[in-house]
Amino acid sequence: MAEKIRVTVWNEFRHEQQAGHKAAEIYPDGIHAVIAEFLNAQDGVAARTATLDEPACGLADDVLAETDVIIWWGHCAHGEVADEVVDRLQRRVLEGMGLIALHSSHGSKIFRRLMGTTCRVKWREAAEREVLWVTQPGHPILAGIDDHFILPHTEMYGEHFDVPQPDETILISSFAGGEVFRSGLCFSRGAGKVFYFQPGHETYPIYHDPTVQKVLINAVRWAAPAEIVKLETTRRETGWFEGDSRQ
Amino acid sequence: MAEKIRVTVWNEFRHEQQAGHKAAEIYPDGIHAVIAEFLNAQDGVAARTATLDEPACGLADDVLAETDVIIWWGHCAHGEVADEVVDRLQRRVLEGMGLIALHSSHGSKIFRRLMGTTCRVKWREAAEREVLWVTQPGHPILAGIDDHFILPHTEMYGEHFDVPQPDETILISSFAGGEVFRSGLCFSRGAGKVFYFQPGHETYPIYHDPTVQKVLINAVRWAAPAEIVKLETTRRETGWFEGDSRQ
Amino acid sequence: MAEKIRVTVWNEFRHEQQAGHKAAEIYPDGIHAVIAEFLNAQDGVAARTATLDEPACGLADDVLAETDVIIWWGHCAHGEVADEVVDRLQRRVLEGMGLIALHSSHGSKIFRRLMGTTCRVKWREAAEREVLWVTQPGHPILAGIDDHFILPHTEMYGEHFDVPQPDETILISSFAGGEVFRSGLCFSRGAGKVFYFQPGHETYPIYHDPTVQKVLINAVRWAAPAEIVKLETTRRETGWFEGDSRQ
Amino acid sequence: MAEKIRVTVWNEFRHEQQAGHKAAEIYPDGIHAVIAEFLNAQDGVAARTATLDEPACGLADDVLAETDVIIWWGHCAHGEVADEVVDRLQRRVLEGMGLIALHSSHGSKIFRRLMGTTCRVKWREAAEREVLWVTQPGHPILAGIDDHFILPHTEMYGEHFDVPQPDETILISSFAGGEVFRSGLCFSRGAGKVFYFQPGHETYPIYHDPTVQKVLINAVRWAAPAEIVKLETTRRETGWFEGDSRQ
Repeated sequence: MAEKIRVTVWNEFRHEQQAGHKAAEIYPDGIHAVIAEFLNAQDGVAARTATLDEPACGLADDVLAETDVIIWWGHCAHGEVADEVVDRLQRRVLEGMGLIALHSSHGSKIFRRLMGTTCRVKWREAAEREVLWVTQPGHPILAGIDDHFILPHTEMYGEHFDVPQPDETILISSFAGGEVFRSGLCFSRGAGKVFYFQPGHETYPIYHDPTVQKVLINAVRWAAPAEIVKLETTRRETGWFEGDSRQ
Repeated sequence: MAEKIRVTVWNEFRHEQQAGHKAAEIYPDGIHAVIAEFLNAQDGVAARTATLDEPACGLADDVLAETDVIIWWGHCAHGEVADEVVDRLQRRVLEGMGLIALHSSHGSKIFRRLMGTTCRVKWREAAEREVLWVTQPGHPILAGIDDHFILPHTEMYGEHFDVPQPDETILISSFAGGEVFRSGLCFSRGAGKVFYFQPGHETYPIYHDPTVQKVLINAVRWAAPAEIVKLETTRRETGWFEGDSRQ
Repeated sequence: MAEKIRVTVWNEFRHEQQAGHKAAEIYPDGIHAVIAEFLNAQDGVAARTATLDEPACGLADDVLAETDVIIWWGHCAHGEVADEVVDRLQRRVLEGMGLIALHSSHGSKIFRRLMGTTCRVKWREAAEREVLWVTQPGHPILAGIDDHFILPHTEMYGEHFDVPQPDETILISSFAGGEVFRSGLCFSRGAGKVFYFQPGHETYPIYHDPTVQKVLINAVRWAAPAEIVKLETTRRETGWFEGDSRQ
Repeated sequence: MAEKIRVTVWNEFRHEQQAGHKAAEIYPDGIHAVIAEFLNAQDGVAARTATLDEPACGLADDVLAETDVIIWWGHCAHGEVADEVVDRLQRRVLEGMGLIALHSSHGSKIFRRLMGTTCRVKWREAAEREVLWVTQPGHPILAGIDDHFILPHTEMYGEHFDVPQPDETILISSFAGGEVFRSGLCFSRGAGKVFYFQPGHETYPIYHDPTVQKVLINAVRWAAPAEIVKLETTRRETGWFEGDSRQ
C-alpha cells in the first residue's frame, strides 16, 4: 500500500445528469464528487473518481492497479458494466483491494458475483425514517458512532436480504413502516474486504450527512489492504515428510 | 438419542404463582405447562417439566442424563439457580444436549456462561407490536414460517444485544418504538446447539401463539443431538509419522 | 419435500470411460453408480444419477424440480457444463436444494458461482496418507464418526483454499507431506445448504470407504431442505405504521 | 486510545524461575521480558509487563484502565489468578481492550470465561515440526507472512480444540505426528477483539522467532480498540413512533 490509501469512487452517474431529477439538485456534480471530496479532506486518504460512461467504465487496468479501496454506487445501469471489467474487479478484490458497496449496489454485477446469491431485497420509496442500530460496538467502522443514528428520510430496504451469512453484522436498521434490514455488513473474499452499507438513495441527501460520512471514512481505513496478495496456487512436488530435501 | 426427543421444559415459575399477577391469569399452571403440552402433542417428542423450587432446581443428574433438549425460561430469580447446577448444565450442553433459551433467559446464568459476555439488552414494557422478519429462509427452525410474523403486544428488547457473533441469525425483529433486535440466534458450543428466541414476556400470551409454537417445535428438532459426544482430550503419546506403530 | 429425500448424483463420468484409466478399474460403472448404490440402501433416500454427456447435462428442468439434494463430482470437464445449466442449478440451490460438492468439484462452475471466489487449492498426487480430524463434534454430518479417520492413499489438497469463511468447518485434514486442508465445510446460500467434502480422487477407492460413505449419507440428510422457498422479493407499498390498513 | 498502543504483557512467570528448567535458559528474564522488548522496538507501541506474583496479579484497576491490549501467557498456575481479577479482565475486554492469548493460555480462566467452553486440546511434547498454514491471506495479522511458516520444534496441540466457531480462522497447523490445530483464531467479545495464537511452549525458543514476533506485532495493532465503549444498557421509556417527543 502506498503512503496514502488510494480510493477510487465509482459512480454510475446517470440520475444526476437527468434534467429535473431530484438527484441532480442534491448532487449537481454527482454522488462520486461529494464522496471524494469528504474523503480527500482526511489525512492519509487520496480519492479519485470514475464513472460508467468513461472509457472502460473508468476502470482501466492501471486505475485498478493503483486502487486500494473502491467505493461503488450503481442503480439503473448495472447491466451496462462490461463483464470483463467485472472480471478485473473480482480479481483485484480477491488479491486484497477493498470494496465498499453502497445502497442499490447490492444489485451490481460485482457485488452479486462476490456473493454468489441474488442479493435481492424488499423496498419502498416513502421518505421513511430509518434508525440504524449498532450491533457490534467497538468495530473499527463504527468508531465515534453512538449506539444508533437516524436518517429522517430514506428508501426502505427490507429483509430478506439474500446474501450469504456475513462475517460481521455491524448495523441493523428499522424503518418507520416496520421492516428491518442488515444495513452494515462485512465480508471477506480472498484477501479482500467487502463492506455493504445500505444508506444512499439518490433522492435524499444521504451522503451529505456527517454520520454517514464518518462511517464511510472509517470503512475506507478498515477495507484498505494490509498488503496485496497473489493468490496463485500451484502443483506442489514435495512435502515435508522424512527425507524431504526441503526441510 | 432415544426414539423420542426427550425435552425438559425448565421454568423459574415465580410470576405465575403471585396472586393477581397477569402471568397467573395467562399461564395458571405455569409457562412450562403450556410449552410441554404443545410439545407432547407432536410425534417423536416427549416433554417433561422442571422448576426452580424443586430439589436441585429440578435438574438432578439423572434428569439431565435423560434430556436431549432443555428449554429454559427465567427472569427474576436467575441468581437462585445453584452454580453446581449451572456447571452440570454447561457440561451437558458441551456434550451435545440442546439448549433453547427463551426471552429473559438471556440473563440466565447458563446462557451467560455459554456466551462469555454480559448478554445485556435495552428493554421497555409498552405492549408494543413486534414484527419478526426471517433473515435465513430455509432454516429448519423456520420451516412453515412465512417471511415474517407479528406479535401484537410484546416487551421491547433492543440492540445492542451483547452476545458473540452467532453462527446463524435467523430472525430479526422491529418494534413499534423503532428498535431492532436479533430475535432468533443459533450458536454451537462444544457438541451442543443453542437457540436463543426472544419472544416470551410473561404478561402477554406469547406461548399460546401458534407461530411461536411452530418455531419452538422446529427448534426442538433442530437442537436435538445427533449423538452425545464425550469431549475428553488426553495426552497423546504418538503420531502417525514414519515408523509409528499405529499407522 | 417428498417422503424420501430425492438425491441426484451427478458425475462428469469421463475418467471411468477411458480405457486403461485407473478410475475405470475402481469404478467400472462410474463414481455416480457407487454413490447412488450406497445411498439407495438407506431408509428414506431415493437416489438417481445424471452425467455430463446426457442431454442437458442430465439436468433438465424436471430433474432439478424433483431433486432435494444434488451430489456433484467433476474434474477435467468443468468447462463443458453449459452456463444455462449452472444458472438453473444456482436458482434451485438458492430456493433450498442441497448441494454436496465432492473433491475436485471445488473447481466446478456451480461451486465457484456460489462461492464468488477462485476456490483454488494447492495439490499433489503422491498417494499420501490423509488424516481427517473432527473440528465440530456433534455436527449431524459427523454422527457416528470418531474424532478422526484415516484414508491411506489420497491426492493432497492444501491451503490456502480460496473460499469465503464457511458457516461451519467440521473437518480439517493433514497430509503426510505436511499440508493441511479444510476438508469438510458447510455454507448456506439463499435457502440452500452446501457441503464441500474433499476426499474423492478417482484413482483411489475413496467412495468404497465405509466412513466416507457414512459422512455422505449424513450429509444428504443434513442438506435436504426443510421446505422449498420462493425467494422472490417485491416492491412493498405499505408498512405497519400507525393507520396502516394492513395491521 | 492514547497515541501509542499501550500493551501489558502478562506472564505467569513460574517455569522461568525454576532452577534448571529449560525455560530459565531460553527466557532468563521471563517470556514477558522478551515479548515486551520486541514490542517496544516498534513505532507506536508502548509495552509494559505484569506477572502473577505481583500484588493483584499485577493487574490493579489502574493498570487495566491504561491497557489497550493485554497479552497473556499462563500454564501451570491458571487457578491462582483471582476470580475478581478475571472479572475485571472480562469487563475490560467487553469494553474494548484487546486480548491475545498465547499457547497454553487456552486453559486460562479469562480465555475460558470469554469462550464459554472447556477450551481443551490434545497435546504431546515431542519437539515436533509444526507447519503453520495461512488460511486467510490478506488478514492484517498476517501482513508480511508468506503462505506458511515452520517451527522446527514445538509442543503438539491437536483438534478437537473446544472453542466456539471463531469469527475468523487465519492459521491452521500440521504437526509431524499427523495432527492438525487451528492455531490462529479471531473472536470478538463485546467491543473487544480476542486473538488466540498457539505457538509458545516454554521449552522452545518460540518467541525469539522473527515470524512469530511479526505475527504478535501485527496482532497488537489489530486488537487495539478503535475506542473504548461503555456497554451499559438501560430501560428505555420511549421509542420513535409518531408523536414521540424524542424524534
